[in-house]
Amino acid sequence: MTSPTISQIGEISLIDDIRKQFSQKLRDVTVGIGDDAAVIKPREKYLLLTTDMMVEGVHFDLRFITAYQLGFKLISVNVSDIYAMGGIPRHVLLTIALHKNTPAEFVHMLMNGVKDAMTLYHAVLVGGDLSSTQDGISLSATLIGYAGKYILRSGAHVGDRIYVTGSLGDSACGLHVLKKMKRTVSLNKKNARGSMHSFCKKLGAMHGGPARSGLSWKIVEPLVRRHLMPEARNPQKFIRDATAMIDISDGLLIDLTRLCNEGSTGAKIYEEKIPVSIEMKKAAECLGIDPLTLALTGGEDYELLFTARQGKRVSATCIGEITESQRVIVNASGKERPLSVGGYRHFQ
Amino acid sequence: MTSPTISQIGEISLIDDIRKQFSQKLRDVTVGIGDDAAVIKPREKYLLLTTDMMVEGVHFDLRFITAYQLGFKLISVNVSDIYAMGGIPRHVLLTIALHKNTPAEFVHMLMNGVKDAMTLYHAVLVGGDLSSTQDGISLSATLIGYAGKYILRSGAHVGDRIYVTGSLGDSACGLHVLKKMKRTVSLNKKNARGSMHSFCKKLGAMHGGPARSGLSWKIVEPLVRRHLMPEARNPQKFIRDATAMIDISDGLLIDLTRLCNEGSTGAKIYEEKIPVSIEMKKAAECLGIDPLTLALTGGEDYELLFTARQGKRVSATCIGEITESQRVIVNASGKERPLSVGGYRHFQ
Repeated sequence: MTSPTISQIGEISLIDDIRKQFSQKLRDVTVGIGDDAAVIKPREKYLLLTTDMMVEGVHFDLRFITAYQLGFKLISVNVSDIYAMGGIPRHVLLTIALHKNTPAEFVHMLMNGVKDAMTLYHAVLVGGDLSSTQDGISLSATLIGYAGKYILRSGAHVGDRIYVTGSLGDSACGLHVLKKMKRTVSLNKKNARGSMHSFCKKLGAMHGGPARSGLSWKIVEPLVRRHLMPEARNPQKFIRDATAMIDISDGLLIDLTRLCNEGSTGAKIYEEKIPVSIEMKKAAECLGIDPLTLALTGGEDYELLFTARQGKRVSATCIGEITESQRVIVNASGKERPLSVGGYRHFQ
Repeated sequence: MTSPTISQIGEISLIDDIRKQFSQKLRDVTVGIGDDAAVIKPREKYLLLTTDMMVEGVHFDLRFITAYQLGFKLISVNVSDIYAMGGIPRHVLLTIALHKNTPAEFVHMLMNGVKDAMTLYHAVLVGGDLSSTQDGISLSATLIGYAGKYILRSGAHVGDRIYVTGSLGDSACGLHVLKKMKRTVSLNKKNARGSMHSFCKKLGAMHGGPARSGLSWKIVEPLVRRHLMPEARNPQKFIRDATAMIDISDGLLIDLTRLCNEGSTGAKIYEEKIPVSIEMKKAAECLGIDPLTLALTGGEDYELLFTARQGKRVSATCIGEITESQRVIVNASGKERPLSVGGYRHFQ
């Protein structure tokens, strides 16, 4: 039995379903989905506002990502911007443009992904807009967050240490793996491991990896997951010490450059200190890609890059320090070279 | 000389231009465009949140609308939702997805339209996202507004009078005219009148209108303007008396039905009381369309539909009253028929 399309279901019943799925009574949401606008009663001094778009063929490829993962990622990407300001995500507005022949099941799974991500981040859907489109899918979310105080990109001082959360390059490496696989993968079911195992072995052998130690799903899974269903990093553990902060969406080098530009500072970072996961290193080597390049220029990690005064105990990886003006990277032999900015650019 | 494309200009300088064009210091905007999120300090008890999308080939056709008009309309459409809640528009976030071969001049004009509309409504741009797309243009705006008190769709009581602002069907009639013209028109320059005059005469004659009294640009202009550059209606004059309110975006009948559904009421409206402009009546007759049908079912007027207690002096047109349960329309001879809902539906 094939799933009916959204043109068979119709716009009104589609919106009704979403409205039911997301109806909640909450103290700070006076009026939720369904009127001309939502009404909220802010409960903190500052409100944070951000919006991020995901366009088919540009930000995602449905050969690699499922509707559920897409919905989850759309929310994470926006939450990451709120976290990068030191805030707490709260209210979500969605715009969804879909072709009329889209299966209703696709919308259902998309909204499940949106919902699961919102539950994870304690965010609530308060409104949105649904449209047909003649071509590919286009999604956007606006996220409204709270902050008692906020952290700008521009707050770094000379001498501050530079930190990153998690490990870098995992998402870009995961995308390379997906491009080899040319299909979507399930990240929720335990049986995924079995079905993936033979592929990973093949991938290992294909690229001349030692047959016995070929890539296992255990190695590939966290990379692919980081790309398809990134979880935004909550900065609460180090927020008191952070002087400047940005999320790494376009690659470490480009986002560090942004942070330096906003604060009119330089930076010195050390290749050896860049946190790289064992999984990423293994997979990258197997695929014949330089792990360091992935870690420095790979986008969509959604880790946090921040600075803190020297001498603070910070639970993140220190990768260097803020300097007067020059921006350099130091290699293992102690040799410096200027930071050259890579990363994705729209319209190029 | 042809305008360079946005791929020649590049994403970063495009964003820089926009950032410069919209940079303002304002008391309630602590951090504007340029960081991970904007920071605002709300100055009223309630915040209103709404988002609306405009997709090429669905909401607009670049054969009929200019980039400037499109930018203006995108803001008006969103402001209309804030006004329909009784609020004051304030902060705007934009998402813009464009093909890389789009002329930079197009983006410039689009942002000029956005800016002029925002000036009209005293709104400010605080953030957004810019993306490439493989196909048509996709735009969305999120509008954050203030309200000391707000007006829902659901507040109408039996016996309340039903009102509309302005006149209905002008936008739909303007779209019919544009579809005949098959080209964009300038609405800002005085010389537009001259260049349009012969077309309008032809249009009048074509449809068998009396040659001497054929359509003039003076008749057509307000209709076309209502469609291309609608101005949202500020409800301040009657806000104290309004018990329920909605903006007419999908046609009077569909939006009145929504208002009745939310309040679980009926409605009785009178054909003869529906406000129709002289221009619309003339143009519709000339085009062979029934003016009443346009007024009842034509979308995108962005007039306000609201209810107020009987006996109030309200500066808008009374078209009927709220009843217990049945929804009917009364014709000139006093004959009732049920309201049958038309209007645009996505995915059909």
